[in-house]
Amino acid sequence: MNQKIKIVNDPVHGFIQMPSGIGFEIVNHPYFQRLRNIKQLGVAYYVYPGAVHSRFQHSLGAYHLTQQAIEVLLSKGIPITNDEIEATLLAILLHDIGHGPFSHSLERNLLRNIHHEYITLAFVHFFNQLYPQKLNLCLNIIKNNYHKTFLHELISSQLDMDRLDYLKRDSFYTGVSEGIIGTERIIKMLTVHNNHLAVEEKGIYSIEKFLIARRLMYWQVYLHKTVLATELMLLSIFRRVNFLFNEKKIILPEQLQTLWNNHWTYDELLHNPSLLQTFAELDDSDILVWIKQWSNHNDKVLSLLSQRFIQRQLYKIQMTREQVNEELIAQYKKKIQKQFSLSDEETNYFVFSDSAENHAYSIKNNRINILMKNGEIKDIAEASDILNIKVLSKNVVKYFVCYIPECL
Amino acid sequence: MNQKIKIVNDPVHGFIQMPSGIGFEIVNHPYFQRLRNIKQLGVAYYVYPGAVHSRFQHSLGAYHLTQQAIEVLLSKGIPITNDEIEATLLAILLHDIGHGPFSHSLERNLLRNIHHEYITLAFVHFFNQLYPQKLNLCLNIIKNNYHKTFLHELISSQLDMDRLDYLKRDSFYTGVSEGIIGTERIIKMLTVHNNHLAVEEKGIYSIEKFLIARRLMYWQVYLHKTVLATELMLLSIFRRVNFLFNEKKIILPEQLQTLWNNHWTYDELLHNPSLLQTFAELDDSDILVWIKQWSNHNDKVLSLLSQRFIQRQLYKIQMTREQVNEELIAQYKKKIQKQFSLSDEETNYFVFSDSAENHAYSIKNNRINILMKNGEIKDIAEASDILNIKVLSKNVVKYFVCYIPECL
Amino acid sequence: MNQKIKIVNDPVHGFIQMPSGIGFEIVNHPYFQRLRNIKQLGVAYYVYPGAVHSRFQHSLGAYHLTQQAIEVLLSKGIPITNDEIEATLLAILLHDIGHGPFSHSLERNLLRNIHHEYITLAFVHFFNQLYPQKLNLCLNIIKNNYHKTFLHELISSQLDMDRLDYLKRDSFYTGVSEGIIGTERIIKMLTVHNNHLAVEEKGIYSIEKFLIARRLMYWQVYLHKTVLATELMLLSIFRRVNFLFNEKKIILPEQLQTLWNNHWTYDELLHNPSLLQTFAELDDSDILVWIKQWSNHNDKVLSLLSQRFIQRQLYKIQMTREQVNEELIAQYKKKIQKQFSLSDEETNYFVFSDSAENHAYSIKNNRINILMKNGEIKDIAEASDILNIKVLSKNVVKYFVCYIPECL
Amino acid sequence: MNQKIKIVNDPVHGFIQMPSGIGFEIVNHPYFQRLRNIKQLGVAYYVYPGAVHSRFQHSLGAYHLTQQAIEVLLSKGIPITNDEIEATLLAILLHDIGHGPFSHSLERNLLRNIHHEYITLAFVHFFNQLYPQKLNLCLNIIKNNYHKTFLHELISSQLDMDRLDYLKRDSFYTGVSEGIIGTERIIKMLTVHNNHLAVEEKGIYSIEKFLIARRLMYWQVYLHKTVLATELMLLSIFRRVNFLFNEKKIILPEQLQTLWNNHWTYDELLHNPSLLQTFAELDDSDILVWIKQWSNHNDKVLSLLSQRFIQRQLYKIQMTREQVNEELIAQYKKKIQKQFSLSDEETNYFVFSDSAENHAYSIKNNRINILMKNGEIKDIAEASDILNIKVLSKNVVKYFVCYIPECL
Repeated sequence: MNQKIKIVNDPVHGFIQMPSGIGFEIVNHPYFQRLRNIKQLGVAYYVYPGAVHSRFQHSLGAYHLTQQAIEVLLSKGIPITNDEIEATLLAILLHDIGHGPFSHSLERNLLRNIHHEYITLAFVHFFNQLYPQKLNLCLNIIKNNYHKTFLHELISSQLDMDRLDYLKRDSFYTGVSEGIIGTERIIKMLTVHNNHLAVEEKGIYSIEKFLIARRLMYWQVYLHKTVLATELMLLSIFRRVNFLFNEKKIILPEQLQTLWNNHWTYDELLHNPSLLQTFAELDDSDILVWIKQWSNHNDKVLSLLSQRFIQRQLYKIQMTREQVNEELIAQYKKKIQKQFSLSDEETNYFVFSDSAENHAYSIKNNRINILMKNGEIKDIAEASDILNIKVLSKNVVKYFVCYIPECL
Repeated sequence: MNQKIKIVNDPVHGFIQMPSGIGFEIVNHPYFQRLRNIKQLGVAYYVYPGAVHSRFQHSLGAYHLTQQAIEVLLSKGIPITNDEIEATLLAILLHDIGHGPFSHSLERNLLRNIHHEYITLAFVHFFNQLYPQKLNLCLNIIKNNYHKTFLHELISSQLDMDRLDYLKRDSFYTGVSEGIIGTERIIKMLTVHNNHLAVEEKGIYSIEKFLIARRLMYWQVYLHKTVLATELMLLSIFRRVNFLFNEKKIILPEQLQTLWNNHWTYDELLHNPSLLQTFAELDDSDILVWIKQWSNHNDKVLSLLSQRFIQRQLYKIQMTREQVNEELIAQYKKKIQKQFSLSDEETNYFVFSDSAENHAYSIKNNRINILMKNGEIKDIAEASDILNIKVLSKNVVKYFVCYIPECL
Repeated sequence: MNQKIKIVNDPVHGFIQMPSGIGFEIVNHPYFQRLRNIKQLGVAYYVYPGAVHSRFQHSLGAYHLTQQAIEVLLSKGIPITNDEIEATLLAILLHDIGHGPFSHSLERNLLRNIHHEYITLAFVHFFNQLYPQKLNLCLNIIKNNYHKTFLHELISSQLDMDRLDYLKRDSFYTGVSEGIIGTERIIKMLTVHNNHLAVEEKGIYSIEKFLIARRLMYWQVYLHKTVLATELMLLSIFRRVNFLFNEKKIILPEQLQTLWNNHWTYDELLHNPSLLQTFAELDDSDILVWIKQWSNHNDKVLSLLSQRFIQRQLYKIQMTREQVNEELIAQYKKKIQKQFSLSDEETNYFVFSDSAENHAYSIKNNRINILMKNGEIKDIAEASDILNIKVLSKNVVKYFVCYIPECL
Repeated sequence: MNQKIKIVNDPVHGFIQMPSGIGFEIVNHPYFQRLRNIKQLGVAYYVYPGAVHSRFQHSLGAYHLTQQAIEVLLSKGIPITNDEIEATLLAILLHDIGHGPFSHSLERNLLRNIHHEYITLAFVHFFNQLYPQKLNLCLNIIKNNYHKTFLHELISSQLDMDRLDYLKRDSFYTGVSEGIIGTERIIKMLTVHNNHLAVEEKGIYSIEKFLIARRLMYWQVYLHKTVLATELMLLSIFRRVNFLFNEKKIILPEQLQTLWNNHWTYDELLHNPSLLQTFAELDDSDILVWIKQWSNHNDKVLSLLSQRFIQRQLYKIQMTREQVNEELIAQYKKKIQKQFSLSDEETNYFVFSDSAENHAYSIKNNRINILMKNGEIKDIAEASDILNIKVLSKNVVKYFVCYIPECL
């Protein structure tokens, strides 16, 4: 059949060729379509108004880059079969389907015992039942159970197509143009060595730039103080709702009721399609509507936090040297306790200490391999003389006190 | 006071200098912040996944271009006082604040007797009470009651900063890069002649391109068949809800109840702050959540339409020569009536005829003045020999039948 | 053999895949390399400092777009053999090789009886001898003697890859960003109907925009008053040199001597390799050096014109209604004749009338075919209701008087 | 007087406001106009065909950025008088006027004892006589004799506007888009501390990226192997011409005769306007024409090298560990000596060893100051934990053997 190729416009990569076959059907499934209403960067649009792009776009973008990467590898004589191509493309298409509302900003707050990567797996198993056994190879590649390791690395590694897309896309939509990376060039430099993805030596400067851009995006966007403050407010709200739920002082929205009713495990999720369905019904809009409703709740803490979230009256953040600066916290608490007539327990929602951490490059998990002209493989940490890899791979932890402006 | 200038990143224009003074306070007011959750292009993101940008960004963008335009006019010796500058900037900042959820896609469905421009006026009057009488001049400029007509034209005319921003922004976010226009050049060519905004003769080609780009955006984006189909499904849902409401067969969400309770007029909106407040509580997320709830409603029509909207199983559209193609409609209705056991009345939600229209340039309302080198003023329709202005200014009406795929 | 694919960076299109085989050898031939030193836009860099791009880049760029266009046609099932692909790619690669120094600015001034397209043909014949009979098909495609007309149209028609590249490239390098066209989209819309290149109906707006952009580039760049004035000064210099040569009052540079020695015809060029070689030795640098030398010549007219060209003291241009404004010319001549002690004959180099013309779209030569959804073919002039095709295809002639500033 | 502001289109920065007053006259002086015909990146266009941009564009671009930087500093309350602004802008406008043909590629080959920065000074002194004493302050700023050190640093330091422009411009024109830096953001972060230019702490990631981009441009463009090989061939030609000149075996072009006639010093250049004039007569075109002429010279070495330069048959470069790899050189020499019947002395032009070096950041000369939030000043080397500053500031020397392909 002369199936018409569908093209979609993407502001970041230009024209994207849509998947065909099962991939096309999956994209049109409500479980995938819901990603249209889930922001890639959670609440970051409170600080970067342009950052309203969705997981849907990102998934298609990463899919597009994977297509390109596979073409490059094929052109270099790396053998990849049609089945492997299809499976790898399905894997990248589905790599983020387990994300819930507001992506990372709300992670672990809905299905609290299941990491989003396991939720993703549950969705992939769901599709593997819907299209019986058609996603077996895809699952193996995701789980890194397939012998061609480099296929897994295309979708999950220090230099996977996921990162290439999100760095470029997030830079583009935030307007932090310095984070924009040369995906086209990096992909052209890809190769496979000893079954692992590697980068040709002449791509070394591009990789250095990729790592630096990533670091820049971390501090300038992902861990931006005000983005953090917004996320913490969102999390405080859910913390309070949970407290009230435990105290039986709140009627939860139906889906949340289901999700919190039980300490669901990955196994239960896997074998309970209606649970997965409930999770899949939620997107950013539900959370926003809940918070609007909670802003009228009779619990003072919940209504105050919710109102402030809606009205963008956010926490302030003050960096501290110590992990917990008791003195500062005490001082701030004292200031507002009277003003808002808060109990000690309640005050903790308005003043508390926390930390944020980041490492731009991890040696342990896996590496970025550079294939030197002499055939040797070196980790970028070794191959690059400029990057202080110890710093780059070190967890940077920043401690801070989080408080409402009235504390000052 | 050395007030620190706030800068915000915008993917379209780069750095935008935020308003100061009252403008800054207004941006931070919940009534303005709500625009963050209202998509500029309504449901167009069903077709152009990148088109998720908000009215918030657009408002800041148009504000930014107005700043630039004023600087250009000042540099050409056009006298504009500081008060006029502030008022004009407030006017552009607020020009879209009356938009409700999904912008044009849902227009006239919440406050059904009040055009969004009057809702905007109500908001401006609200702020004029909040900051007593500080927006008088702003209001006069909006209403075109101020003697310097060109200030009004900066915010509302065939070549206002609103259009310059939205054409560029919509092109950018949809990825339809051909719609991108040279705002910087057009603005540099602006001048004032006889109290009216005009464009210097050498800017004529840029204006031609602006009009062509606008036309392109109309057919390629704003009136794209599938965008239209999505909007029509959204509207059918609200039509059905309204029907059920009149029949007392549905319990409306609280805010909708308030808004539909009465045939509110502009005057009532103006003098009823709590009504305005109710309207201001709504954004895209509420609509999405309502539709999810309605997808389980016991009215078959409502639940079917809502499910299809959520799952992106949209209407098909077939262009017709005639205004109403009775025969085709009858044939389509017949096909599905049995399949879904629908009454005649119910079938009308799944098959119906409609039309879309567009004109890229309107002679009547106002013109784009070109200031010729000899000092004469000509309308672009006259000044340009290339544009068939009769065509450009003619309403193009396209008739079509809208139906669900099962009709085929 | 696993020949390594060469990639070259292009600011306009990104990575360009270089030709292989004969194409690669031709690119490396001195006759092709000379294009590096021939500016695409002649003297336009006197007005647009960025417009220093070369015919070399343009040739590679047009080659790149032709590659893409062929891929699109193949994907739509149009049969094109490998030999035809190679021949078409060679044809576009060589389409501009007949250009001499400063491209159009100096056209017809070196080989005065041979149009640059015939010089191109002579070069192609030269390569067809160097690689015996390997360019036969290429020659037939260029000459439109091959039965698959659409291949010729890819390299020479109203919508050929030459134009797509030069419009985009010239916009890019001049910084007149409004001329930038969506080459990617236009190429995706290409198809073949009845052996002719056509554009799918949904590409109609892109074609409209292409025509408008082209018109904009004509008036804003190619026929810009000061660009014209610069070209006219260059041509006046050559007119004077020719006059002195006829009067035996100048010793020509060696190559110019050869080229002007005889009224060479295309036939002579075809069979006289050393003549072609002489032509091929020249590029922009020779002309600049000659003019520097001529600026010290004892002929007053030649030295004055040459000095002014070097020092960028250009003609002024004044538009006139009539073809020749005798009165104005007389007045201007009178003003400078004394000041510079010029004879009547000499004065003609400093004051004269001339005209420039342009038509953005030609109906006669060939058309842009739009393939409507109903299978009909329409010319864009018919298919588009917006473009006033009579205007677009009409020769616009603008008359002017050209003079040195001292005339005022 | 209402002097009309001149605007020029720049592909890199958009619209550039041209200088007025003396600056405008200087731009129109032939000494400045000659920069139009001097390529910013010398022979790099042999490898990056797009890199044909001129010193003229770069000078205007750096001027533009300096305008912006001054505006930023003024807006932060740094006092700068109008005279200082004018002088600083003249200084940046003229900062590269001492460059000769092919910029760095031919440096020290025309006026062999005078560094191009001193030639620049000579030009500035020339203009200071032409516009008597009007450039005194400009000269002091250039020479760092003015008490406001930060003005000098704007035009010459590790973070001057020269570098910001050339990095961005060179990336743009080569198509190595990864080198593109966020000039707008860096400039917004500029401030002055203790009379020195500094960058606000939050600009630290941008500076890191600037340094990494600069390093990338060094290895990918400025010191690209084939660019180097082209430069070395150009230099070999001049070495041979000089040898023949000393042996009285060549008649030099007139200007070269003048420039080589004497071991001119800076002092002589300063007081000999006709010498400066002779230097100013030369641009890229003269060199290209000379080399074409030399390709027919009867000295075998000169003609061979010149032909190869014209025909782009370049040296090969082979990296070596040692400074001089005698063995390899001997082997290569042996291979070609017979083939081309070369004497030992002559062979040195076809096989030799050389080195290239680079350091991206220099601690000694001057630093990039970061103004920390606590008011402290730190060097970027200290402030950034990621950059291995020892590596960055270390001279990287790469040794290689340079040879013609026939050696293999």
